[in-house]
This record gives sequence, C-alpha cells and structure tokens, in this order.
Amino acid sequence: MTITPPALSVFESLESEVRSYCRGWPAVFDRAQGARLTDEDGHSYLDFFAGAGSLNYGHNNPVLKRALLDYIERDGITHGLDMATTAKRAFLETFENVILRPRDLPYKVMFPGPTGTNAVESALKLARKVKGRESVVSFTNAFHGMSLGSLAVTGNAFKRAGAGIPLVHGTPMPFDNYFDGTVPDFLWFERLLEDQGSGLNKPAAVIVETVQGEGGINVARAEWLRALQDLCHRQDMLLIVDDIQMGCGRTGGFFSFEEAGIVPDIVTLSKSISGYGLPMSLCLFKGELDIWEPGEHNGTFRGNNPAFVTAAAALDAYWADGQMEKQTLARGEQVEQTLLAICGEEAEAQFRGRGLVWGLEFTDPARASAVCARAFELGLLLETSGPQSEVVKLLPPLTISPEELDEGLRTLARSVRETA
Amino acid sequence: MTITPPALSVFESLESEVRSYCRGWPAVFDRAQGARLTDEDGHSYLDFFAGAGSLNYGHNNPVLKRALLDYIERDGITHGLDMATTAKRAFLETFENVILRPRDLPYKVMFPGPTGTNAVESALKLARKVKGRESVVSFTNAFHGMSLGSLAVTGNAFKRAGAGIPLVHGTPMPFDNYFDGTVPDFLWFERLLEDQGSGLNKPAAVIVETVQGEGGINVARAEWLRALQDLCHRQDMLLIVDDIQMGCGRTGGFFSFEEAGIVPDIVTLSKSISGYGLPMSLCLFKGELDIWEPGEHNGTFRGNNPAFVTAAAALDAYWADGQMEKQTLARGEQVEQTLLAICGEEAEAQFRGRGLVWGLEFTDPARASAVCARAFELGLLLETSGPQSEVVKLLPPLTISPEELDEGLRTLARSVRETA
Amino acid sequence: MTITPPALSVFESLESEVRSYCRGWPAVFDRAQGARLTDEDGHSYLDFFAGAGSLNYGHNNPVLKRALLDYIERDGITHGLDMATTAKRAFLETFENVILRPRDLPYKVMFPGPTGTNAVESALKLARKVKGRESVVSFTNAFHGMSLGSLAVTGNAFKRAGAGIPLVHGTPMPFDNYFDGTVPDFLWFERLLEDQGSGLNKPAAVIVETVQGEGGINVARAEWLRALQDLCHRQDMLLIVDDIQMGCGRTGGFFSFEEAGIVPDIVTLSKSISGYGLPMSLCLFKGELDIWEPGEHNGTFRGNNPAFVTAAAALDAYWADGQMEKQTLARGEQVEQTLLAICGEEAEAQFRGRGLVWGLEFTDPARASAVCARAFELGLLLETSGPQSEVVKLLPPLTISPEELDEGLRTLARSVRETA
Amino acid sequence: MTITPPALSVFESLESEVRSYCRGWPAVFDRAQGARLTDEDGHSYLDFFAGAGSLNYGHNNPVLKRALLDYIERDGITHGLDMATTAKRAFLETFENVILRPRDLPYKVMFPGPTGTNAVESALKLARKVKGRESVVSFTNAFHGMSLGSLAVTGNAFKRAGAGIPLVHGTPMPFDNYFDGTVPDFLWFERLLEDQGSGLNKPAAVIVETVQGEGGINVARAEWLRALQDLCHRQDMLLIVDDIQMGCGRTGGFFSFEEAGIVPDIVTLSKSISGYGLPMSLCLFKGELDIWEPGEHNGTFRGNNPAFVTAAAALDAYWADGQMEKQTLARGEQVEQTLLAICGEEAEAQFRGRGLVWGLEFTDPARASAVCARAFELGLLLETSGPQSEVVKLLPPLTISPEELDEGLRTLARSVRETA
Repeated sequence: MTITPPALSVFESLESEVRSYCRGWPAVFDRAQGARLTDEDGHSYLDFFAGAGSLNYGHNNPVLKRALLDYIERDGITHGLDMATTAKRAFLETFENVILRPRDLPYKVMFPGPTGTNAVESALKLARKVKGRESVVSFTNAFHGMSLGSLAVTGNAFKRAGAGIPLVHGTPMPFDNYFDGTVPDFLWFERLLEDQGSGLNKPAAVIVETVQGEGGINVARAEWLRALQDLCHRQDMLLIVDDIQMGCGRTGGFFSFEEAGIVPDIVTLSKSISGYGLPMSLCLFKGELDIWEPGEHNGTFRGNNPAFVTAAAALDAYWADGQMEKQTLARGEQVEQTLLAICGEEAEAQFRGRGLVWGLEFTDPARASAVCARAFELGLLLETSGPQSEVVKLLPPLTISPEELDEGLRTLARSVRETA
Repeated sequence: MTITPPALSVFESLESEVRSYCRGWPAVFDRAQGARLTDEDGHSYLDFFAGAGSLNYGHNNPVLKRALLDYIERDGITHGLDMATTAKRAFLETFENVILRPRDLPYKVMFPGPTGTNAVESALKLARKVKGRESVVSFTNAFHGMSLGSLAVTGNAFKRAGAGIPLVHGTPMPFDNYFDGTVPDFLWFERLLEDQGSGLNKPAAVIVETVQGEGGINVARAEWLRALQDLCHRQDMLLIVDDIQMGCGRTGGFFSFEEAGIVPDIVTLSKSISGYGLPMSLCLFKGELDIWEPGEHNGTFRGNNPAFVTAAAALDAYWADGQMEKQTLARGEQVEQTLLAICGEEAEAQFRGRGLVWGLEFTDPARASAVCARAFELGLLLETSGPQSEVVKLLPPLTISPEELDEGLRTLARSVRETA
Repeated sequence: MTITPPALSVFESLESEVRSYCRGWPAVFDRAQGARLTDEDGHSYLDFFAGAGSLNYGHNNPVLKRALLDYIERDGITHGLDMATTAKRAFLETFENVILRPRDLPYKVMFPGPTGTNAVESALKLARKVKGRESVVSFTNAFHGMSLGSLAVTGNAFKRAGAGIPLVHGTPMPFDNYFDGTVPDFLWFERLLEDQGSGLNKPAAVIVETVQGEGGINVARAEWLRALQDLCHRQDMLLIVDDIQMGCGRTGGFFSFEEAGIVPDIVTLSKSISGYGLPMSLCLFKGELDIWEPGEHNGTFRGNNPAFVTAAAALDAYWADGQMEKQTLARGEQVEQTLLAICGEEAEAQFRGRGLVWGLEFTDPARASAVCARAFELGLLLETSGPQSEVVKLLPPLTISPEELDEGLRTLARSVRETA
Repeated sequence: MTITPPALSVFESLESEVRSYCRGWPAVFDRAQGARLTDEDGHSYLDFFAGAGSLNYGHNNPVLKRALLDYIERDGITHGLDMATTAKRAFLETFENVILRPRDLPYKVMFPGPTGTNAVESALKLARKVKGRESVVSFTNAFHGMSLGSLAVTGNAFKRAGAGIPLVHGTPMPFDNYFDGTVPDFLWFERLLEDQGSGLNKPAAVIVETVQGEGGINVARAEWLRALQDLCHRQDMLLIVDDIQMGCGRTGGFFSFEEAGIVPDIVTLSKSISGYGLPMSLCLFKGELDIWEPGEHNGTFRGNNPAFVTAAAALDAYWADGQMEKQTLARGEQVEQTLLAICGEEAEAQFRGRGLVWGLEFTDPARASAVCARAFELGLLLETSGPQSEVVKLLPPLTISPEELDEGLRTLARSVRETA
C-alpha cells in the first residue's frame, strides 16, 4: 500500500515561515460578520481577538459596509496620497466635531501612513525634532511596532533580536505595578533624571500605552498616568500615548487616557480608527509641536480614502453620544464576573483588565496556550500575550451582543476547566 | 467696506503642516476613473502621477472594482492578520502561477505589513539576520521609505534630517552613471570591499532601485545591474531590489529587473501590487533565506484581504499573457517621441526613462516646478523628483489610452513652452 | 595713576580653556616630595589629592626614584612598544609573585596603553568579543574615562555631552545604596534581565567601581559586590572591576575587591600602578578570556619601561608583606575620627569612606567648594567630587605620616569651620 | 635521552596573547642608545622602527637624558594633572617660541592625555561640538588609534572588528592616489557633499594623515592636501591633521603639513613630541575653536611633567634653527638612493616616502614579512605596514648617523636579495 503524502498547501509551500496566527488557528477563513468568522468548511468561530483590536465594531459592520460600498461604487478617490479629497475633509470634520472638540483636545492631525508603526515612527521623529534629543524612554513590556524606530522602544527580546542591529536611543523604565506596588512610582526614573551623574541620556519623550496589550494586559492606574504626565512636564519631556490598540473605545472612552484626565503631547491611533479593519493611522499632536516641514515625513498609502469613509461613518454611528462608552463598560463588567468566577476555581490564574480588554494570566505559561488551543477547537478565537505568552487575552468586538459575549465566556471557562 | 477673511479650510486648520501634495495641487478631489480625477467643482484632471506609481491600472479600474465590490458585499474577510483566508490563498496561487512560475523565480512570499517601508524594513532585517552583519550599502539618490530602517538607506538629506537621530549602518555608493560614464562602474565600491584597510564595514546587503523614481528617474543600465549582482555574489552580500515603484509592470516586465536577467536575493513590492491603490506590500526572497521564526516580524494590517482580492484580479486580468508589457513599451515610445521633440526645442532640458516612467530634467530646478504648476492649471497632474526637484516625472497609468496619453503629452509640451 | 594690567601667563594665553585643576589651585608648582608640593614662590602645600589617586606612595618616592634614576642612567629601554624587555620581565615576575600568586588570582596581564581609559577600552572590547554582545551595564555616578568607549559607561552628564555623539550601548543601574536602602539590591537590574519583555539589551558585561571616587566617594558594601558577582554568573555576564583609582592599596588591600572576596573576570589598573605617577595601566583577565589575536588592540606607549621599573620597585617595597594594608587601615581610622568630629559639629555634613579614601558631603554643594578653596589658602590641596561637586574628597598618599595626616585633617576641620 | 621542554617565559605564561612586536623580534631587549638596542645576551640591533616614530631623536638621547635626570633628581613635579607647573610653563613657552610663532600658527594647546588616541578622541569631540554634527570623514587605510572614537575613523578591518560594536559616524573616502591617478581628486567626496540626495551625513570634520604610516606609507601630495583644505573650507568642515606619527620632523619640517602650506583647524601630536619616548600628546586648534568648558575633557596623566621637560629640551636642541629639517631631507635622499637601487634589481618591489619615512612594497605580501625576519637575523629592526603587511616600513631615528643609516640600508638590501 502506498501512502501519498498530502500536498502542501500554498501557505506552507509559498508563504514565508514568518507566518504566525495561521499556525494556532489552522483553518482557512472565508467570511465574517460581527463577532463571527466562518471558514471555508462552514465552521463558525466566535472572535475574541478582533483583529488584535482592529475590529472594535465587528467584522464587516453593516453601517460602515454600506458607506464603503457606496463610495467605491461611485468611484470616489481610492488612493489619494496627501491630496485634499472630499472623503478626507469629511473625516477631518467629523473627527474634529465628534472627537476633538467635545473633549477639548488641542490636536493637529497627521496622516503618517496607514499602519501603527508608521504613526509611532512619525511621533518619535517629531518628538526628537522638537526637543533636539535622541533618547526616548519606553516601558517594560511595551509594544510599539516592528520598524526600527518603533522596535527600539519595544520590549520583547525575541522581536528586538530580529532587528539585526543593536537597538539604541531607547531606555526602558518600569511600567506601573512592575514591582507589585513595593517600589514608589517613578522612583528610579525620576532619580535618574534629577541626578546629573546618573548616566541617563536626557530623553526627548516618553512613550507609553495606558494598557499594554501585547505586553500582557498590564493596566496603568489613572494616578500613575497623571504622575507620568507631571514628570514629563517637570523634566521637559514630551508625553506620547500610543493608543493604537487601546484607543477607539477599547477601554471605554474614545481615547484610553481620557479616564486619567491627562492630555498627552502626542497620540498615535491606528487599528480601529478606520472602523472596518482597513489600514489607517493618525498621529495627533498639540498645535505648537507642528514644526514639520511639508513632506518631511511622507508615505504612499497615507491617503487610503476608503478608510477615511468608514472612519467617518464609525465616528458618526458610535461616538456622537456616550452610548458606546456605557455599553463597553457594561460588557466589561460581564467579562469581569466570569473571570472572577474562573479565578475563584483556579488558584493558578489571575485576571486584570479595563473596558473590553482583559487578560487571564496563568502561572504556567503553557496553560495559556493550551486554553487558547482548546478554545479554538470549541469555536472561539483567543490569543495569548505577555513576555512568555502566559496571558490569555480577551479582546472581543465592542459591538458584541451580551449573548455572544456570554457564549464566548462560557467557552473560555470550559477551556480553562478542560486544560486543568 | 469690511473684508471677511475666508475661513480656513479644515485642511489648513486641522491637518498638520507636513501635508505636501495638496499644496501643489490646490483642489479638493472627489472622484476618479482610469487616468482622470474630478474635483468637487467638476474640473477634470488627467493623471500623470498615478499615486506615485500605485495606480498602474488606473483609478478605480472596473475589473478590479467588480471583484472588490463582490468581495465586500459577500462579507469576505476584511482584516485577517496573517490568518489563512480564501482570498489570501487565491492571491498566493495566482501570484505563483502568473508571476513566479513563468519567470522561474525561486521566491518565498512574506506579507510584511501593507506599506512599502514595512517591506523594506523586513528585507533589511532578514538580510542582516542571514549575514550577521549590520551594514547595508545603498545608492546615491535612493529612496526606500520613511521609517528609521528604510530612511537610513535613503539619500535625501531633508528627509534624513527628519529622523532626529544620526542615521547609521548605511553607506551610499554611486548609482549607475553618477559620474556620466567617466569612472568605471563599481570602481570605488569594489575597491573598498577588497581593501582590508578601507574602513568600510562589510555590508550584509546592497539595496537598489533599477530606476530611481524619487531620485530623479535615474535609469540603471542592464549591464550595471548584472555587474552589481556579480559583485554581490563575489563579495557574499545579498542583493535587494526595491521594486516598490518600478515593479508591477511600470518598466514593461512585471519586475523591473527582468530585462537585466538578474535574480535578486530579496525583492520588495508594494504600490501597484494590489492594483487598486489599496495598501499592500510583499517581501520576496529566495527559499534558502527563509530563516524567519514565526512572528519574528509582524504587523496589524499585513492581511488586508480586499487588497489580495484586487491584486489577484489584476494579475489575472493583465499578466496572464504578454500584452501588458508590449502595450507599456509601445506607450513608452509615444512618450519618448514627445520628450525628444521637447528637448529638441529646449536646450536646457534632457530626458530619460524606461517603459512608462520618464523624467524631463531642467538645468534650472525652478523650471521643473513651474512646468508642473502650469500643467496643473491646464488640467494635468505632474510631479517633480530629484534631489533639487529638478526633474518633471511622468508616471501615467499603464492602462492609459493612446489618446489620453497624447493629450497629456501635448499639455506637457505646452507647459514647457509657456514657462520658457 | 595708571594700572598696567598684568600680562596673561602662557597658561592663560596659550593653553586651552579645558584646563581645570589649575583654576582651583592658582599656583605654579615646582617641586614635590612625599605628601608635599612646593610652588615656585616657595609655598608648601600638603597634598590630600595625590594625583587623583596616582601617587599612593607620595610624590617622588625616594625608593622608586633611585630605581628610576639608575634605570635611566644605564640607558635601559625607555620606549618599548610591546617588545620583550628586561624591565618588563622584571615587572611581570614581580607582579605575579607579589600580587597574583599570593592572592590566587588567575589573571593574564595585558598592557593596553598607559592610561586608565586605554585599559577600560580594552576591557570593554574584550568583554564584547567574548560574549558577542554590545551592551554593557554601568552604574549611576560611575566614572571610567573620556574616550568614547569609556565615556559611554560614565555617568556625568556634563562629560557625556562632550562626546558630540549620542552615547549608546550602555545602560546605567543603581549603585549600592542609591535609594538609601529602601529598595532591595539589584531589584530593577535582575528583573530586567529575567523579563524577556523588559526591553533591556542583554549585557555582555557589568563594569563597576568598588568605591566611586569621581562619583562622590560612594562605597559599595562587600555583600553588594558579592551579590553583583552572583548576578553576573547567573546571567552570563562578565564582571569588570575598574580598580584604576581604588586599586594599588587605596582601600587597604592591593585590590579594592579583595575585602569582598570576589574574583572579577576583568580588572583594570592604572593611576598608582607605576608608583611614581608615570603613565601605565594594566588590563587583567581570567586566562580563558584571553582570546585576543596578536595586535588586535595596541598602542604606542603600552611599553613605558621606566614605569615598569618603578612599578616593580613599588611592589617589592610595599607589597611583599601585609604592612602597607595595616598602615592604610590605621591611617583610615585616623581620618574617620576627624570626620566623625566634624560631622558632630556640622549638621549639614556627612561622611563615608574606606581605607584612605573618604568623602565629606555637604547639603549645600557650594560649601564643599568653599571648603576646598579655604583649604588651599591654608596650604592644603583638596578636591570635590560627586555629580554636583558636593563632596570634599580625601585622598592623601598612603605613605603619609600620622603627623602630616593630622596636620591636614586639622586644616580641613578649620576650613569647614571657617566656611560655616 | 629525555628532552626537557624549556620553561615558558613569563611573557608566554602571563602576558596576554595580544602581544605582538615581541613575536617578530624574539629577543629580550635591555638597553638602547641612539639608533641601537642591545638585548640581554649582548646582541646589538640597529633600529629602523624608532618606536613606531616615537624616537625621532634616538633612544635615550643624551641631551634629553641630562635634562630628565636633573629634573628627577631635583624632585620636580612628576605627576601634575593639569596643574600649572614650572615644567609645563617652560614647555608651553618653548613650544610657542620655537614652533608656533616662527610658523605663524594660530593654535591653542590642549593636553588631552598622554597617548595619541587621547589626542584624536579630543580632536573629534571638539570638532563635533563646534559643528554640531556627528559624522567625520576619514580616508582609506587611515590609522588613528584603538579607543572607540579613534577606531571608528581607522581603516583596518581586523582592528575594527576588535571593537565588538558596529563602528559608526565615520565614512571613508579615497586617500590620495587611491586609484593611481585615474580618478580626479575628491571626485566622489565632493559630489556626495554637493548632492543633497547623496545619503552622506554632512561631516563635522575630515581627519587625515599627510603620510599614512600604518596604512602602508602612502604619501599625500601637497596639492591634494591643499585641495582638501579648500574643500573643507567650501563645505564648512573642519580639517584635522593627525600628525602623531608624521609630525615632530619625520617628514622634514616640524609639522608634516608645512610643506603643503596648509593650516589645519586641528592638529594632533604625540609619539615624538616628548622626544624621549615618554607618553605625551597634544591637541592643537585654532583659537576660535576653543569652546571647551573647563574639565569637559580630562585625563589622569595629561600632566606627565618629565615628558614636558624632555619635550622642551628637544625643541630647544633640534628646532631652534633649520638644521634638523635639512639633515632629515639629506638622510631621506640617502634612503631613496638605496630603495631606487633595490627596486632596480627587484621587479616586484616599489617604493615611496618623504623625509625619513619610506616604504618598500612587495607584490607578494609574504615577501615583506620575510625581509623583516631576515633583517632581524642580521641585526636590523624593521616592521611591515599596509593592509596586508605588504610594505617594509623604514622609520629610522632622525638623528641616525649617515654611517649607521648606510649600514642599515645595506642590511635591508641584503635581506631583500636573500629572500628573493
């Protein structure tokens, strides 16, 4: 009897070994709607990952879909570099009216290219240009992107090693609660800044996530963020909040820093800003920092107009009033109850989170992966995060129904039980 | 009489000073089809810029549009990270069948994020990882992108200064014909490599454009490219061709390096790869270089599935046979005739190009800008390039009709005459 | 009456503004013997600075002087590069017999050039070569030298700024007692090393002074040094002790780390190693680290043979038995008593030290300078140290007599009183 | 019969493998006088290396020796940091009167530490500080020292690799005649500077040797040096001449650049400046560049006063009139005649040089080493230089007698013949 080895799929034969998510979720996905994906064999999956936070309004949200189809059908500008277009104007006006003005935020808007790392690179460039210094402080377990500028302020050793050059001009400081409350906040950072003999290159800026998504769902307290803002002011450093994953409502408010009452000097947005999962990003900064020369930073796809269309539609649909925020906080409580119950039964687990981003950490990192694997078998998409992938990350669409959320949480609980 | 100053548009009041193209083309564009854009006042513009080479098949190409609308309508996966999807599989299979196999190219395919600079960053990372060296050689007037890795191998001093840190690990070498043929090719480069006392850090790789678009439409000869490939082989350096602007048929063949008969170790593609102007990029490399670990490089928007759909449709529609290449070369001859005529009348101008990328250089840089400005008034979008913006760059869609091309070339000729 | 301004001295007219000590001690010194210098006007000064620790055996020590004169008179080799010479052999044999063997230290000896910074540069090179990593950890308020490699691991912001380039590849960690005992030792450092997401580039080595001389006479506890050695072993980092200022008996034992019972992987020595104040330095390292290729590091003056002669004579005269160490500790107690008394009367002062290196810190930095200025008027050479020059540094020759030491201490006490 | 292996000498057992010259010259040297060294077995060697140019006035020159002994005997200050001393004043006045004033050179004098690399580090720091730029241009086959700043502008790949970090902020340019006259001088360098798209980071300074000693006795023409000075002026870059090996009369005039009639902005001196082979170095710069803050650069042994004494004595003895220069040029002609004769008989050899620095290059690098080895057997110390050690380097003391010079040249000729 001869066994014919199965032909390799084109993913295995042609796509680079660098591919990653497709290994943990071995299915070929075909369609998606709201919080559900369907693979080509017709299996349905509930999505608690939401495109790593890019699909806050769910897959192929019908309101945005209608606007997008209309725009494409009427031959609206698709690729616009940084030309003025009616779609861009509509987005800018909506962003100003719905987001900036009600929050009294004094920002100029830059389109730095359509990905998060483009936005971070532009933020770092601008901060260095404004302050005339090279050094930037980031935090333990930060994640800011894969291009060299962003990677230098990212914590993960494995990803840093991929750079192929020594990553310099960045210095890590302890994120909130890094020592479980045993060390006063900013003790080390502030002392280095004040001590003229410390050896710390004076930073141009500090870049921070209010909740570290890739880093393991580490939640900064509001008072820690306020103290960080104060430190930046006292020490003449710019405060950059990277709100790429936590912005656009993930933690409740549109910006994740609103709760703390701070006003960062520079803010990066991407992932869910287009609303539909289309590549788009923004770099926001206080008007007085807008010392860019025309074209000093650019990029081919910074004018992805279909994304502007869905972005404006999403802002109109979800942010004209405070409903979205309330709903997210309510859903978050629903998640919290389940995690509380799970951790009640499971001594080796603990949880943390805010809004609709939650992490369930296991003492044994392998357990987190096992939970995600079992969840996949049961039709739930879940990913790990943290330096050792020890945290199961819950990132459902904000628009998920209470019933779907409950269904996913029950699957999660079952996966935890069945991997004990 | 009181004059009320006109209200600032939202572009002026809210968008950062970094905006650029909108200054030279002061219109608000609304729709586009093929080689034409229409502004909100109904004025029509012929497009000889094509999204800086991102719109080789024209604006909103109907074939691709149909595929895109169908995909969106049927709720195909929009945002897919690097999950396996039916759209991605279709793209990979088409790319293999239509592009790689007929050309006998031994490449693996990586989706490094949707922008050109993402692709360049991944190419540089991989080359450094493979060779275990930091240094990369680039060429005078190269343009590879705005994130720190790519910017370090980009020539433009103004853009480099935007980095805010000293850009290191890159060394420029003279591009083909930098000394007008008076110095043997690679004299300096090869001597530095061979001389153990030269002080050149041994490069991991060389990155090159076959035609430098941003650098002033500098066309490398086929024999120069072949000699560069030989040099790389002899000196154990990887050859990276950045085909982001010149690939996808811009110079005739699908890859711009085909004509020279070389096979680069690594190739970057972006701009027109999606066909529809949607953000997408690829990094291709020889199979033996595929030493990436899963997830060692990643990015939120590397699975922009609508772009995969239009990309596959474009390959099917335009590259299944040799028609596209022939047509491009024919249109190129049409351009060349006009430029020949212009330079016959205009002593201070010279031209160069290949396929459908051409440059018209003026001794006085201000003249090039004047030509573009006049062309805009006459309804033709034209941009300058080169270190002093001294070159008028012709980059019409490859799908432009002979009549439209002729119309645009006549407008160009008129603009040249009227700015004399 | 006309006042003729005095002619500028050649120091003022010709020597660079970079000159420094001559400003605080405005005298032209001519001769010196033991603990005393004499200026050209015949004024005598007691020396509590000892060439920043280069004159542990006093100025022009008669025993060494005799050996030096004999060597010069008989035309011994003066400049020997790294040729084998009888003087070098004598030094090596003496160093092995008197210093290394009795202490059971497994070191190879390298002559890296005659200055401390040469030794530090060679130590850093070797550590990076051995470990294949770029990063080195240093400590707050460290001082290791002025060439770029050493400066990058030096804390002082003013001196760092002189580099003219961003200093990279070094990360500062808190020195012992940086937080007055409120934070566990190495809490931050160890956590960064263990956390794969910390963002710390894994260090090749740690470089440390057991007592920071320039940094303000910060004394590391023996247990802290032992814990640091343990940490280095656990984390595969080399431990470099920079014993340039504290070695050669300054703290009691020949090496300052002997008391802690540690055996660093690499040790740098300079300053008092020649005994006579002649330029000389050594880099010592464990035999298994000796992976240098011949000539991989070199230097014109690494064979300063007259220094080898005085060095060997000093070892023979002072280190053949334990007398020197005992005497230093006794003299140290004499200093300590005085400082205790001073601080008893002076609430704004505190002191610290070990062996014959002591610091008297004032709350008001200006006071420390005032004390030194007054001491100079009274015929005592004293310098400040610390990031704000807030510490009066006591560094008398080890060979100072109890009477001279007492005289100096009385002058110090008077200077403190008179500047209150 | 039992053969007892000879005991390892302390050089082999204790000294690091980094030792180098002692391998090619396996003798233990004991005494020296003028152009001759004597080993411990009584063998005499004629010295055509002169401490790599540190012994221009011969070993233990009697005039300087007398001054040195007197100074030591009378307990003159030995170690003086940067305190004002009578010895330092005497040196400064002599240097001003004998060297600077007669040549009308507008320099301030800095004592940057006693080694060449200290001087180069200080020169680079100052240039970067003055211009506010990081980049420095050096030349192919340059040698400037072993600390990280100097090493980054040094050409030798083997020595660069020793750094253990990527060496950045330096760019090599072709030294004079690098392409045997086939390429116009500075074609590449000037074009890169003028082209805003070249990718060259604008340099703060250019550092150059007028004759590259370590690089293979490459002699820059006077007109090339003048053109370089012009280029620096036009392009706002400082010109640093590293005269450490070629200064102090090696090429005829006191400074090697005098012949070209240029006035560098910054000059480094070391090696023979003390005259006696004692560690000493200077950094000279135009007065308007003296923007150092007090103590911004420092070093323990920058006040090596015995070296100041011999330095002043050497200037008085040899540079008060033009005799030294004439004699050097005469001796140089004597060398040139011999080399001419050697190359007449030896097709595979060619020579070059100036003053009393000459190189004899062999097509086969192994031959150069063989010549030096044979010369050693015949009692002549000779070293190779050049990137492949392909050049026999002639560097006799300037004070060598015609007879000794003739003797050495005959030994050289014989060594060449006997290795054919």
